[in-house]
Amino acid sequence: MVGGATALYGGMEALGLFASPAEAATDFQPPRAADLPDSARGRRTKVVVLGAGTAGLTAAYELGKAGYDCHVLEARDRPGGRAKTIRRGDRLTDTDGVTQVCRFDDGLYFNAGPARIPNHHVTLDYCRELGVEIEALVNANAESLYYHENTSTTDYGPLASTPVTHRQAKADVYGYVSELLAQAADQGALAAVLSSDDVDRLVSFAESLGGLTGGRYVGNSRRGYVDAPGAGHDAGVVGTPPSMSAVLQSEFGTRFAFEFGFDQAMMMWQPVGGMDRISAALADAVGGRRRITYEAPVTQISNTGDGVRVSYRSNGRVRTIEADYCISTIPPMVLKDIPSNFSQATKDALTVPTAANTGKIGLQYGRRWWEEDDKIFGGITATNMDISGIWYPSSGFLGRKGVVVGYYSGAYTDLSVPERAARAVAQGVKIHGTKYRDELDTSFSVAWPKEPYSLGGWVSWPGGRGAAYDHLLRPDGNVYFAGDHLSYLIAWQAGAFESARQVVTDLHQRVAATAA
Amino acid sequence: MVGGATALYGGMEALGLFASPAEAATDFQPPRAADLPDSARGRRTKVVVLGAGTAGLTAAYELGKAGYDCHVLEARDRPGGRAKTIRRGDRLTDTDGVTQVCRFDDGLYFNAGPARIPNHHVTLDYCRELGVEIEALVNANAESLYYHENTSTTDYGPLASTPVTHRQAKADVYGYVSELLAQAADQGALAAVLSSDDVDRLVSFAESLGGLTGGRYVGNSRRGYVDAPGAGHDAGVVGTPPSMSAVLQSEFGTRFAFEFGFDQAMMMWQPVGGMDRISAALADAVGGRRRITYEAPVTQISNTGDGVRVSYRSNGRVRTIEADYCISTIPPMVLKDIPSNFSQATKDALTVPTAANTGKIGLQYGRRWWEEDDKIFGGITATNMDISGIWYPSSGFLGRKGVVVGYYSGAYTDLSVPERAARAVAQGVKIHGTKYRDELDTSFSVAWPKEPYSLGGWVSWPGGRGAAYDHLLRPDGNVYFAGDHLSYLIAWQAGAFESARQVVTDLHQRVAATAA
Repeated sequence: MVGGATALYGGMEALGLFASPAEAATDFQPPRAADLPDSARGRRTKVVVLGAGTAGLTAAYELGKAGYDCHVLEARDRPGGRAKTIRRGDRLTDTDGVTQVCRFDDGLYFNAGPARIPNHHVTLDYCRELGVEIEALVNANAESLYYHENTSTTDYGPLASTPVTHRQAKADVYGYVSELLAQAADQGALAAVLSSDDVDRLVSFAESLGGLTGGRYVGNSRRGYVDAPGAGHDAGVVGTPPSMSAVLQSEFGTRFAFEFGFDQAMMMWQPVGGMDRISAALADAVGGRRRITYEAPVTQISNTGDGVRVSYRSNGRVRTIEADYCISTIPPMVLKDIPSNFSQATKDALTVPTAANTGKIGLQYGRRWWEEDDKIFGGITATNMDISGIWYPSSGFLGRKGVVVGYYSGAYTDLSVPERAARAVAQGVKIHGTKYRDELDTSFSVAWPKEPYSLGGWVSWPGGRGAAYDHLLRPDGNVYFAGDHLSYLIAWQAGAFESARQVVTDLHQRVAATAA
Repeated sequence: MVGGATALYGGMEALGLFASPAEAATDFQPPRAADLPDSARGRRTKVVVLGAGTAGLTAAYELGKAGYDCHVLEARDRPGGRAKTIRRGDRLTDTDGVTQVCRFDDGLYFNAGPARIPNHHVTLDYCRELGVEIEALVNANAESLYYHENTSTTDYGPLASTPVTHRQAKADVYGYVSELLAQAADQGALAAVLSSDDVDRLVSFAESLGGLTGGRYVGNSRRGYVDAPGAGHDAGVVGTPPSMSAVLQSEFGTRFAFEFGFDQAMMMWQPVGGMDRISAALADAVGGRRRITYEAPVTQISNTGDGVRVSYRSNGRVRTIEADYCISTIPPMVLKDIPSNFSQATKDALTVPTAANTGKIGLQYGRRWWEEDDKIFGGITATNMDISGIWYPSSGFLGRKGVVVGYYSGAYTDLSVPERAARAVAQGVKIHGTKYRDELDTSFSVAWPKEPYSLGGWVSWPGGRGAAYDHLLRPDGNVYFAGDHLSYLIAWQAGAFESARQVVTDLHQRVAATAA
């Protein structure tokens, strides 16, 4: 199907020039009943899946395509796991027993877990397959801000405690740095490593990147206008840039590389209506409540020799389900404390990964002042304050109200719910002024280490992916493990999709081999 | 309403540090009936507006708010002027008498005129006011491509005729340039202009921007993967970058500054459903066919001493409308040939601006191969071939079919309709392979110099905005002139909005003064 371009890209890959555009997802073949020997087709293999997050639902969905008889147990009252969208009426009780109820207006929400999907992640393939509509997630925007305040160790100079647009910071940093680069080239400082033709090309590049005038950076319209151009005689007025030293001292430039990250470069995407639209579509595709039992926390997992037995609580009593295989997508921080007859090596491996401390707060404002006053339509303001950033919503543009994400940080986990809002708002006021406090309607915060059944935002593998990681890639008896923590895409839904695909492939091959 | 932030921004503006976020639109006060003396309120001032493009409709809309009795004459059968969205069934006959009929599938379209709206343009304020829903216009995307082929004067080296993702080009150019910058700094080449602290800050910036390893650029994940990371042991494989000289010789880096342009930097926006949703909303707000006569080309404009008389053709006969004032938004290339009793100075001024030669082609494909195969979700591939670029659609993501803009160029104006498609497709094949030809369903091209009633994409003022420009900012008798050509935002709808606002303000002040 790919035709000419495959040949084209293939040739360039051979030259090491060009990353393949097709990438990760293409290797996976969903299991098919036809893969199994005749002897295995009569009897449907039963699989119990633990967790209706992205990994668990994907495993059930893909196995279901081949006729496996899957049942999913989910501790929460909804699918999605950490892919959680917070809306009016949502009620969360944390591990301290503190309950919040969301008071956002109808139609407003924020994604408390994963919030962005890169172009190349398999997540978009699932959106296509499941009919989940997507829209842009604004991960970079020239109008959003940088804000650095001095610390005990760093003085950011004249631009400290000054919000500066990404637009202006880029124009000024690239302007001055290009001026320095052109000067160094002109002075022959690069003659040892560059041909004279390449020096000329470098200078042309610097003049273009910096918007230089006679080899100097003096500011230009890229940084924005003090008075924007309009009709008639209104040619606009460009401001004067701060000094080169002030711009270097601001250290705004060290933030630019974020936008080049493989997983962060625009374009980025989100499902229309909230990230949980993906897990909702997966849950539907799996068969809904016919195949998923919610509010069913697992209490025991046992290999039985020829299968598995899983106990869980449901409606106040303990029930048991038996199956040929189990796929557990329960986070290791939770799974390690669930009684099982796993091998000691498995039990030890589950204690190795450490939980990431992170959380978010959604701040509902009665007016979209960031759009109306500041012309910020989506994007992220980045700061060295402990909120780390302010996310402006990537939906509902030009509307009346909206929900801003006021921090993405682990620094708020141990604060009380009101203290979280107060601290986040106080930092936002420094950037946006008192409207950040005055126009706030209501807020809702999620601290992932305190979410029962998650106990962390994602995992780290101390010292890297070692023996424990390797161990959990293999089944313990008839129990397989899946989740983003068993991938190189930790904290991304794509890691959960890819891990589920891997485990589904492994399990299906085993069933085929066992039956043969 | 703005509160604390105004004080904050105001202070920074005084320091020259920060462009005002509020900018252009804030000065305008829509005319109000209350501005007029009692003597003028009883009798409604009648205004005939020539042209139902953005400027004309805006003038009628804003004057209508103050009770002016406006009527709009439009030569075409629809509003919008150059803000034209091409859909199934659209029929265009050019000045050569060649008629095209659009055969796109229902629901597919492209914007043949303006296609992007920056954050800060007044256009978004009108979208808010008129209830026009917006969505992202993908003007920059890490997955879209650069493609340079050698010319008789330039050899682009090993990367000539090789499509390279923006992602990869940025990683490689910024990588190597940062390496050079860090080297120059280490060698003391910048000691004359930078303090040693600033040299350290510059080196830190270079290491961050370039993703350097021990001061050298050796490639990294920012450029993309040859084999993307996945589950289990799939850590991914990053490709090896071309040499520094090859990267400089490619000249891809000289294209980066496009994304920093005041009017081009992301985020950019478009109305959901096509750019003509704005003019459709304006036409509705003005009063629709009650106040707009379509298919009514103007044949004569006369100042009558105390008013204006305009003749136009309609349903095969010439009709006449009389009014107190006229606002003509007819492009100067068209207006100069319409008989009038304008002063000779006005007639001369109308001949000064020259028409921009530009056009676009929409290519409908039966499969969104750019998304499915290449992970390109919107954005623009840039090339030195005469197509200038390929625009992937910013709507309908993950769907089945789509319309790609195959050129944005004046080089196709004088080709026949089939020749335009053949030439554009041949260039696209060089970048995307034979699917660019094989999977094409149908196409439709617009050459603005051949569009009757436009006769060009926009105007240039040879030698800059001089006496002719100044002259047309003033009325000729009771006839005012408006349009993007009378602004510092030429070729932008914002220029039309701002010009209309200016003329509306001028006219309203005159009416108030005359009546007083």
